[in-house]
Amino acid sequence: PTRYSITLLPGDGIGPEIVSVTKEVLNLAGSLEGVEFNFQEMPMGGAALDLTGVPLPEETLSAARKADAVLLGAIGGYKWDKNEKQLKPETGLLQLREGLKVFANLRPATVLPQLVDSSTLKKEVAEGVDLMVVRELTGGIYFGKPRGFGTNEKGEEIGFNTEVYAAHEIDRIARVAFEIARKRGGKLCSVDKANVLEASMFWRKRVTALASEYPDVELSHMYVDNAAMQLVRYPKQFDTIVTNNIFGDILSDEASMITGSIGMLPSASLGESGPGVFEPIHGSAPDIAGQDKANPLATILSAAMLLKYGLGESDAAKRIEDAVLDTLNRGFRTGDIYSAGNKLVGCKEMGEEVLKSV
Amino acid sequence: PTRYSITLLPGDGIGPEIVSVTKEVLNLAGSLEGVEFNFQEMPMGGAALDLTGVPLPEETLSAARKADAVLLGAIGGYKWDKNEKQLKPETGLLQLREGLKVFANLRPATVLPQLVDSSTLKKEVAEGVDLMVVRELTGGIYFGKPRGFGTNEKGEEIGFNTEVYAAHEIDRIARVAFEIARKRGGKLCSVDKANVLEASMFWRKRVTALASEYPDVELSHMYVDNAAMQLVRYPKQFDTIVTNNIFGDILSDEASMITGSIGMLPSASLGESGPGVFEPIHGSAPDIAGQDKANPLATILSAAMLLKYGLGESDAAKRIEDAVLDTLNRGFRTGDIYSAGNKLVGCKEMGEEVLKSV
Ligand SMILES: CC(C)[C@H](C(=O)O)[C@@H](O)C(=O)O
Ligand SMILES: CC(C)[C@H](C(=O)O)[C@@H](O)C(=O)O
Repeated sequence: PTRYSITLLPGDGIGPEIVSVTKEVLNLAGSLEGVEFNFQEMPMGGAALDLTGVPLPEETLSAARKADAVLLGAIGGYKWDKNEKQLKPETGLLQLREGLKVFANLRPATVLPQLVDSSTLKKEVAEGVDLMVVRELTGGIYFGKPRGFGTNEKGEEIGFNTEVYAAHEIDRIARVAFEIARKRGGKLCSVDKANVLEASMFWRKRVTALASEYPDVELSHMYVDNAAMQLVRYPKQFDTIVTNNIFGDILSDEASMITGSIGMLPSASLGESGPGVFEPIHGSAPDIAGQDKANPLATILSAAMLLKYGLGESDAAKRIEDAVLDTLNRGFRTGDIYSAGNKLVGCKEMGEEVLKSV
Repeated sequence: PTRYSITLLPGDGIGPEIVSVTKEVLNLAGSLEGVEFNFQEMPMGGAALDLTGVPLPEETLSAARKADAVLLGAIGGYKWDKNEKQLKPETGLLQLREGLKVFANLRPATVLPQLVDSSTLKKEVAEGVDLMVVRELTGGIYFGKPRGFGTNEKGEEIGFNTEVYAAHEIDRIARVAFEIARKRGGKLCSVDKANVLEASMFWRKRVTALASEYPDVELSHMYVDNAAMQLVRYPKQFDTIVTNNIFGDILSDEASMITGSIGMLPSASLGESGPGVFEPIHGSAPDIAGQDKANPLATILSAAMLLKYGLGESDAAKRIEDAVLDTLNRGFRTGDIYSAGNKLVGCKEMGEEVLKSV
């Protein structure tokens, strides 16, 4: 059998529960497709802070670098919320992204027919939504320099950051997005604020220049404020969206909430080469941590993305995706997606049901 | 009677139609409360570009400076979309905001019971939404320097902007927001990205420091990605939101679309002293310009904000607000808010009906 090494980063809150369930699903789906895994569990986020004093220990990053893929649970919690920047769980996540150079963040937002009622949007608006946000993840205002605190020419205190994109950073994320759009509905919407920001004008120019290489993809541009509206007004108009780090942070979260079931949504963060990071888009939900209430499906679907985008094991990926749909069809629901007439289960039981369907 | 001078900036697209209708409503409501207006109409946006070659002529800015308040229609259109930055209608708007130092942008998003069905959100989620976004309007990444195009240390082309806030800029917008929250539901949510950006950490620190001066206002903080989700999930949780220029641009548009009737939403932009700018939040809608189809109610309600926030003429403001509600209750609807059983009218007829109700 083919062997892959996977670094598991359970993290904080519900992270350990959902990762543990997902590990078993990966094992079973893999074994049925002739694929085996070596899992290595490493500390990260708040858990790493408590254990080692930093949110991303050097050992964790180097284990991740050597792995074929990284599966992350969730990080963060009230306990570390007041920490200074270098000691925040979130900083560990940013260091992981930077350290693994995973510049392309893929965030699908899909409304499953089984869960259309979970959306706060009217059924006719929500049903059939199936979009992908391709977010630039290692550049822009998240990493731009100069940044920090200081004083301005009047001697007044200031806080500042730099939004900056270099040509190659825009080109490589745009290429990823064009390729994805090509495999999806053939429509790519690039979101920027080119009526105000130079960084966005440059973004739009580079994306536009690449379009001729993808004649089969229909490229459009939209201002970020309009995109935030259009996602609410008529989300079905979108197929693939490509945007910068901060706009992608905002719009992908908005898009995910439009589905009404963020406990279902996976994500993939990919680099030029080297291991990708796969994680649910939801957070660590400290309020329900350790209570066996968490929905593991977003992590299980992240494992499917890991197989598909990270390892090229599409058959095993398909097995997991189908198993999740089958489990939903058989009426199993965790609390966050529960509706009358279905069977309410906890995290472990949901995992067991998915295993039955794999 | 008290006399005020108002600079009218009809602008582009549907701007002239909606401003012309609104002018009559202002005249009538004013006369019934012992208030008279001198209107001075000046070119701005694309109209000014065509006439004078710049989007905000010096004469327009100086007329606005001398006025008691500015009423703006809408600016922009396909015709000028490809213009370089200095020759974009939008640049004229930014110059107007900067020139009049209107740093506080008030954007209410209210779901009227008469129009709850226009929202794409489920009725139980949309009904009762009544929030106010207080957006910083003359700072942050919109105006921060350095900005532009250049090359990085590797000689590669870049585009860049600076997100920067000085202490007094944060303090003054926070004070406006605390005051507004105090008069509304007593809850203020400050939105930032303080888990990543230094500019946001500084923002949060200054806003938090002011809270002790407003013990009657309950202050909370939220990350911008979460706020984008929460607006979709449960918009009723918000009373007053305060945020920076770019996050305010995005979130206020999202909030307005949640109401489902952006043709109804006014805005006010206020400075420390001097005239405020009052305008509908919708755009210039070039596709329906000149066809007498535009909804003038957002501009009419902007005139009510002009009276209330700009001139302190609350009675005349109330008259206009009540007239708009009464007109809706009598079943008059423009196309954008039309639903079966109501009377479809154009821009002018809607204006005439409002006049009957004033
Ligand atoms: C935790 C935070 C730093 C992170 C981000 O802003 O990228 C998160 O919101 C996300 O989207 O993965
Ligand atoms: C037209 C544009 C420059 C403007 C902005 O971004 O401020 C608009 O979107 C707004 O919100 O008034």
